[in-house]
Amino acid sequence: MANANFGVAGLAVMGRNLALNVESRGYTVAVYNRSRERTDDLVQSHPDKQFVPSYTIEDFVQSIERPRRILLMVKAGAGTDAVIEELLPFLDQDDILIDGGNTFYEDTIRRSNYLAESGINFIGMGVSGGELGALQGPSMMPGGQKAAYDLVDPVLKEIAARAPEDGKPTVAYIGPDGAGHYVKMVHNGIEYGDMQLISEAYDLLKRVLGLTPETLAATFKQWNAGELDSYLIEITADILTRRDDLGSDAPIVDMILDRAGNKGTGKWSSQSALEVGAPQSLITESVYARYISAMKDDRLAAAEALHGPDYKFDGDLEATIEDIRQALYFGKIMSYAQGFDQLRMASDHFDWNLPFGELAQLWRAGAIIRARFLQRITDAYQAEPELHNLLLDDYFKTVAEKYQAAARRVVALAVQAGIPAPSLAAAVAYFDSYRSAVLPANLIQAQRDYFGAHTYERTDKPAGEMYHYSWYDEA
Amino acid sequence: MANANFGVAGLAVMGRNLALNVESRGYTVAVYNRSRERTDDLVQSHPDKQFVPSYTIEDFVQSIERPRRILLMVKAGAGTDAVIEELLPFLDQDDILIDGGNTFYEDTIRRSNYLAESGINFIGMGVSGGELGALQGPSMMPGGQKAAYDLVDPVLKEIAARAPEDGKPTVAYIGPDGAGHYVKMVHNGIEYGDMQLISEAYDLLKRVLGLTPETLAATFKQWNAGELDSYLIEITADILTRRDDLGSDAPIVDMILDRAGNKGTGKWSSQSALEVGAPQSLITESVYARYISAMKDDRLAAAEALHGPDYKFDGDLEATIEDIRQALYFGKIMSYAQGFDQLRMASDHFDWNLPFGELAQLWRAGAIIRARFLQRITDAYQAEPELHNLLLDDYFKTVAEKYQAAARRVVALAVQAGIPAPSLAAAVAYFDSYRSAVLPANLIQAQRDYFGAHTYERTDKPAGEMYHYSWYDEA
Repeated sequence: MANANFGVAGLAVMGRNLALNVESRGYTVAVYNRSRERTDDLVQSHPDKQFVPSYTIEDFVQSIERPRRILLMVKAGAGTDAVIEELLPFLDQDDILIDGGNTFYEDTIRRSNYLAESGINFIGMGVSGGELGALQGPSMMPGGQKAAYDLVDPVLKEIAARAPEDGKPTVAYIGPDGAGHYVKMVHNGIEYGDMQLISEAYDLLKRVLGLTPETLAATFKQWNAGELDSYLIEITADILTRRDDLGSDAPIVDMILDRAGNKGTGKWSSQSALEVGAPQSLITESVYARYISAMKDDRLAAAEALHGPDYKFDGDLEATIEDIRQALYFGKIMSYAQGFDQLRMASDHFDWNLPFGELAQLWRAGAIIRARFLQRITDAYQAEPELHNLLLDDYFKTVAEKYQAAARRVVALAVQAGIPAPSLAAAVAYFDSYRSAVLPANLIQAQRDYFGAHTYERTDKPAGEMYHYSWYDEA
Repeated sequence: MANANFGVAGLAVMGRNLALNVESRGYTVAVYNRSRERTDDLVQSHPDKQFVPSYTIEDFVQSIERPRRILLMVKAGAGTDAVIEELLPFLDQDDILIDGGNTFYEDTIRRSNYLAESGINFIGMGVSGGELGALQGPSMMPGGQKAAYDLVDPVLKEIAARAPEDGKPTVAYIGPDGAGHYVKMVHNGIEYGDMQLISEAYDLLKRVLGLTPETLAATFKQWNAGELDSYLIEITADILTRRDDLGSDAPIVDMILDRAGNKGTGKWSSQSALEVGAPQSLITESVYARYISAMKDDRLAAAEALHGPDYKFDGDLEATIEDIRQALYFGKIMSYAQGFDQLRMASDHFDWNLPFGELAQLWRAGAIIRARFLQRITDAYQAEPELHNLLLDDYFKTVAEKYQAAARRVVALAVQAGIPAPSLAAAVAYFDSYRSAVLPANLIQAQRDYFGAHTYERTDKPAGEMYHYSWYDEA
């Protein structure tokens, strides 16, 4: 009885919510979970919905119309390989598996090649938006065979979020094999960067300017009404208003231990930036900041041993708050410029032909990094699809030039006050490196030629012509 | 006729010089190269030396006494696998292959396991010192089976450099399988950091303070007479005195294009730091600085489009030069603290039990990063073998606290002047992060719990107990 239009395997909260979302658009949805409790719970708590539950893989596959569209929502890693092996005997040529997990893009490339041997299509799809997004409308980044994508496109467009600016659904075809999961990985890296920038701003407001919890909350709320308007600033303002839920009178944020976890996607993003040659310093500093935060015991010992500067703020409070706001926006521009540069270099490296204009537009809603700012990036790539770096777009160039003074003051303030601002500092260093016609790498090339005969190019000769200096013959 | 004591396969400049070095210590050395010209050239240009040339792999292996000690000096990568496959049929149990190339440590682990199946020992050995070091005494970092190492130890000790402080040879057993190549990789990462710090200092002296080529050379020469005394500062001073060798009257450094190359070891070092959870920001910024330097065409376009601050230095010239010297030393301390922290975490990750005290001591001579400074690290680990971070050693703590004011002034100066100093800025941010009892990661944990229910630890509850806040129930 192949009467379901779509299948979902894996019914933990993300899979369950996506199944509910798909069903709500008028589709009959086949559902399967390794342990039957989750299947029963979903079906029994929604008796009026068009779900087709199965309790074996074979029944599940047989319950879906061909070519089958099956979304896998299982824990990324070995679990994905295991469920693919279980499905494979029952699938038919041209069926479409969609992996909606936070999968490493190299695994997606491998699985895509493996399944292609059996004529099965494979779509690696990044999904952003958390539990609520899955239910109400996520941002999705699918990569795989274009013809297969076209068969799932109608469903994805219906379940996606819609951008407030133009109502467009936040999903689009990203490119072959691992392209979708790669873009999701960089999205997550950018999310790390955004969160780190916000936390540095919060730290400066709190530790240097001495703002109270109430003023901190009000400041972020006010920022969210302007060009920083974004989901992460919005929830930061909300978080700062919340009280401890375990009885103390403190703000909850003050009861939370300063040891940040991570699920690895920021790390992958930085490792890949290093691989493809992309100078993605801000996200990497954000990953390292989480690592240092996790070394809590070391830090407690070091805080006893290592003394910083005696610093007391005596500047203009209001002006410095505005400086920090501008520095945060400046940092965000640098982070996205680096992230999109990484995507450009990865697109060349993997021959993916990524649709840069689409990427920003499909993060405008649903995604954790959704922000008013993303419309500016969408506009920039619509105006110039071949844009080489966001900083060369008129809007971003103008803001970067205008806000650089505040960013410089804030980094200098942090450095003098002894408060770490690694991502803001990386933002300024990137801006100054990128706009330097001449960098001191000439000296590095001289050193490399001196000790290792690595040769160098000359300023007065064609690029690519290599020269060597006889360092040891003279002197 | 198995009369050679030692074999060298691969006679490009590094292999040739190591063969000459071994022979000079009274050993008969079997030599082999894929193309016979290099073998002939070595033997014919040194007719009085005890070389045993071979022109087939079989003859080469047969010419060496058992258990054979064979050093491979071939281009790292597929070439290493190819020569191992050619050697394997002729080797006997307990023979020892030593890979002296710049090999990725994971390849060394793989080859070690593969050869162990045939009872062949495998030593992955990092070699630092360039061509001249190979001939006159390199620094060597061998990892592999301890019993096999003991059989090559006498030869390595004789060909190594000797530390000026105590005459000890710059080689020691590092640990199992990939440990030697891993340590060499981090050594190279540290080398990237040293070179970047020097180039940032050079850039500030030149672009902010306006020093002439002569004064630049004299400044580095003077620095080399003090606590910065090191090979890289020494060659920097020498490089800055050299004139163009193609006819112009300019310093050669001004004729060299500012586009830095890399052989990948710095990149691997950063990728592994990300993997093992080590906050290695300074080396990573050095790798990214090379990447930005390579984007010369982009930078030329950006230099036209993006305007920096109008800045004119009007401070105290001599005091600022001294500030930059102190900042450079401060940066070096942070870089080595991070590098040794990475080694500590990698040692745990791979269960290598690395001998930290030995590592610094065997870089004191021969290695590209050789420096007076390394004796301080040697002393620190001799005083406290379980030292958790260099910054907790008395000497480094005292210098870091004393020089932090200069480092802060220099980073603030760079930021205000619009000259990129990414590594110096990363050094200060690392110092301030590491000595922060409380970091703003509490806010990051709140955000993660808000959008993804990732849970958090509390300041008033045991570590490891996870809590979740009902963000959506209230508000």
